Amino acid sequence: MTIQGVPSDLLHQFAAIVGEANALRDQADIAPRLVENRGLYRGVSPMVLKPGSTQEVSEILKLATETRTAIVPQTGNTGLVGGQVPSTAGTELIVSLERMNRIRDVDPVANVLVAEGGAILAEVQKAAEDVGRLFPLSLGSEGSCRIGGNLATNAGGTAVLAYGNMRQLCLGLEVVLPTGEIWDGLRRLKKDNTGYDLRDLFIGAEGTLGIITGAVLKLFPQPVGHQVAFAGLSSPEDALRLFEKASNLCGTALTGFELMPRIGVEFTTRHIDGVRDPLSEPHPWYALIDISTSDSAETAETMVQSLLELGLETGLVRDAVIASSVAQQKALWHMRESMSDAQKPEGGSIKHDVSVPVSSIPAFMEAAEKGVLAAMPGARICAFGHLGDGNIHYNISQPVGADKQAFLERWREINGIVHGIVLSMNGSISAEHGIGQLKRDELARIRPAIEIDLMRRIKRAFDPANIMNPGKVISID
Amino acid sequence: MTIQGVPSDLLHQFAAIVGEANALRDQADIAPRLVENRGLYRGVSPMVLKPGSTQEVSEILKLATETRTAIVPQTGNTGLVGGQVPSTAGTELIVSLERMNRIRDVDPVANVLVAEGGAILAEVQKAAEDVGRLFPLSLGSEGSCRIGGNLATNAGGTAVLAYGNMRQLCLGLEVVLPTGEIWDGLRRLKKDNTGYDLRDLFIGAEGTLGIITGAVLKLFPQPVGHQVAFAGLSSPEDALRLFEKASNLCGTALTGFELMPRIGVEFTTRHIDGVRDPLSEPHPWYALIDISTSDSAETAETMVQSLLELGLETGLVRDAVIASSVAQQKALWHMRESMSDAQKPEGGSIKHDVSVPVSSIPAFMEAAEKGVLAAMPGARICAFGHLGDGNIHYNISQPVGADKQAFLERWREINGIVHGIVLSMNGSISAEHGIGQLKRDELARIRPAIEIDLMRRIKRAFDPANIMNPGKVISID
Repeated sequence: MTIQGVPSDLLHQFAAIVGEANALRDQADIAPRLVENRGLYRGVSPMVLKPGSTQEVSEILKLATETRTAIVPQTGNTGLVGGQVPSTAGTELIVSLERMNRIRDVDPVANVLVAEGGAILAEVQKAAEDVGRLFPLSLGSEGSCRIGGNLATNAGGTAVLAYGNMRQLCLGLEVVLPTGEIWDGLRRLKKDNTGYDLRDLFIGAEGTLGIITGAVLKLFPQPVGHQVAFAGLSSPEDALRLFEKASNLCGTALTGFELMPRIGVEFTTRHIDGVRDPLSEPHPWYALIDISTSDSAETAETMVQSLLELGLETGLVRDAVIASSVAQQKALWHMRESMSDAQKPEGGSIKHDVSVPVSSIPAFMEAAEKGVLAAMPGARICAFGHLGDGNIHYNISQPVGADKQAFLERWREINGIVHGIVLSMNGSISAEHGIGQLKRDELARIRPAIEIDLMRRIKRAFDPANIMNPGKVISID
Repeated sequence: MTIQGVPSDLLHQFAAIVGEANALRDQADIAPRLVENRGLYRGVSPMVLKPGSTQEVSEILKLATETRTAIVPQTGNTGLVGGQVPSTAGTELIVSLERMNRIRDVDPVANVLVAEGGAILAEVQKAAEDVGRLFPLSLGSEGSCRIGGNLATNAGGTAVLAYGNMRQLCLGLEVVLPTGEIWDGLRRLKKDNTGYDLRDLFIGAEGTLGIITGAVLKLFPQPVGHQVAFAGLSSPEDALRLFEKASNLCGTALTGFELMPRIGVEFTTRHIDGVRDPLSEPHPWYALIDISTSDSAETAETMVQSLLELGLETGLVRDAVIASSVAQQKALWHMRESMSDAQKPEGGSIKHDVSVPVSSIPAFMEAAEKGVLAAMPGARICAFGHLGDGNIHYNISQPVGADKQAFLERWREINGIVHGIVLSMNGSISAEHGIGQLKRDELARIRPAIEIDLMRRIKRAFDPANIMNPGKVISID
């Protein structure tokens, strides 16, 4: 393939910043970085730059702004909305932070950890654990996703209920601006009311306002007590009522409340090694309940038992099991986290990452099922997710025997149906995955004009040459 | 006094928007709104506008941008950095939200409350309580401060440790932009990753980017168990170690950990009605410990007893008392919350609202005391505050018998000493009160130029005519 669009002498200048060994030009090396996990987007790029320091990132962006060369930042390449994939024009360079993967500092007394943007999430978790602390962000992709991307997308995951998303888990940032200037905002303070909140502006900006090269992350005490239960339920309505009881009973000790449908359990037991149905009879819906306590192990035991007793007494819980070992706890979570992968052998899957006010979850589930099945009889709805956050991954597997390509071509149409219901309930079309390329135009349609206009004003103020991940989140011009 | 600077026909146009009855022109009516609580700033203004609706606020700001008329938003006028006080030029109009004080909605199932910007904090707390919920923001000024100001300053207070500051307690905003456009961002979602974080940009902007006219606030279950203890300690070092034990033991059930010096107890018992020393002997330092539990009252009892036993065993606690009634709990908190007022009869007081990493509190206290006493022998340091947040109100009462005015004239000099130590520990010169007029120039001096520059770019992008609370937070030009 011939790549045009970036003159070779300019490529040479960029390569000189990081050294030739860290400037990939061979398309065989570049190829894995051009496509995202679901295969929705495939980009073209003449070069991947792998800077080794914040200073090198700064020099790259300075040159990029001077020469109006578009830059796509990439970390673990696990994003689900195409935010990390270059366009097909072949004019965009990828800046990969994979070499900037150090953990700069861990302080268990102050409960902070300082990581570079390319640090792998699992390694950050491990570094916290090594000093007896918890870094609570937990995602299916934690073995390969990286902190810079977690911050750029304000990542959520399974522990948001108790600990918040990435915005709540970060105290300070180091950011290289599109102009190459470096903002050292690596503060370690819990309270700091000194001007506009630049940190939260960069978090969630999906690499369109700058590149996050370092972050101060919050650590927490490791829980003393931990219990995981799995309960069979009749309906999302009952799940919501059980969640309310769990919240009242456990308060912030309720560290997870995940909803799963019967079909999800069928898919995972069928396709994922080692997953078994934990209950003897099938149930229409399931809740995975995670409780972590700081005072004693007994408190967690008492809480989980009281909750399930209350659930059985009130008829909200049909049957339930409490994991009796750490291995069993992990097995229950493994089932939940495999739910997306388990859909792949079932053919095409049309995905949604939506949120509604928690109390609207049952009404949303009912309306969405009606809408989707009316448009596509036989569609298999595998909707699961973080009930406690109002966040459902509303995934739809193709009807048995349907043509995969024909099914996937209806992605936008089905999105339209589900998102319409979400918006009628004042929900969000992207609860945790972000906007990227996938939802950019839809965002501009559904949000008030003033909101998109304010975002454009910020983008122009920070990135006057429009070189930072152009075309992601919002379009300019 | 003759006010010049705003032509009378323009004043007439502004008055017409809200109606003459809601446009104060009499200087006797305006006067209380021109001065802040500490008397540090006294402004001049020809008119106070009291809009009754978001639409009226919009019309005011539209006219202001068209005519380049500066606007100072004001709610409860309890701010401590002069952010709500107009300049002395007489060219700025005050827009007071006091009539927009409604609570628009309370939903105990979804755990949200929607308030107008002028709603009084205590009334919001009450409305939550009436439906069995907690709105946790708690401040000394809660009887008169208003939600719009709490948001504009990202208010903190005594419950930040467990619940976060205003930024963490708000899900959505309604904001009138300087141009008069209305942003309806009144969302009720826990997770929503759809573009730049405009909400957190308006929160803490101190009215320089727009006027917050409405907000969706988070509610929480009311605690079931509540315990308050008061412990005599030897040093801030011991307080820090006790705080670490309390955090580990109680986790998020630790809802307050306040540090107070002996002199603070002396001042409050001397000057505040009904305050008595809860312990029989004097101690150099004190901790006020607040524990709230969601599962049972017994858990709170067990926690507070275990903590104090541990403290006594390890020698960290010299003596302690647990409040045995709600009245006693309130009395202990009343002592803490009167600590600032109790300094007034002791003469002048030079204030600081600083934060450092929690683990640096003892070193900060030692260094600051040395520095201040070297510059001003006899100064009486009454440093108290939210130890668990690293946030100390480092207040200094004048030496006994000193001249108040001469003492207060050294405000900047003493600030310089204390802030220098704070900055050497990577701390913040404004942990929770904000920047306003008081710390604007200092902020510009101490922060990296790029940070101030980014703030200016945002200000210009949102407020091209520079009419919104000009001269607060950052200067333009």
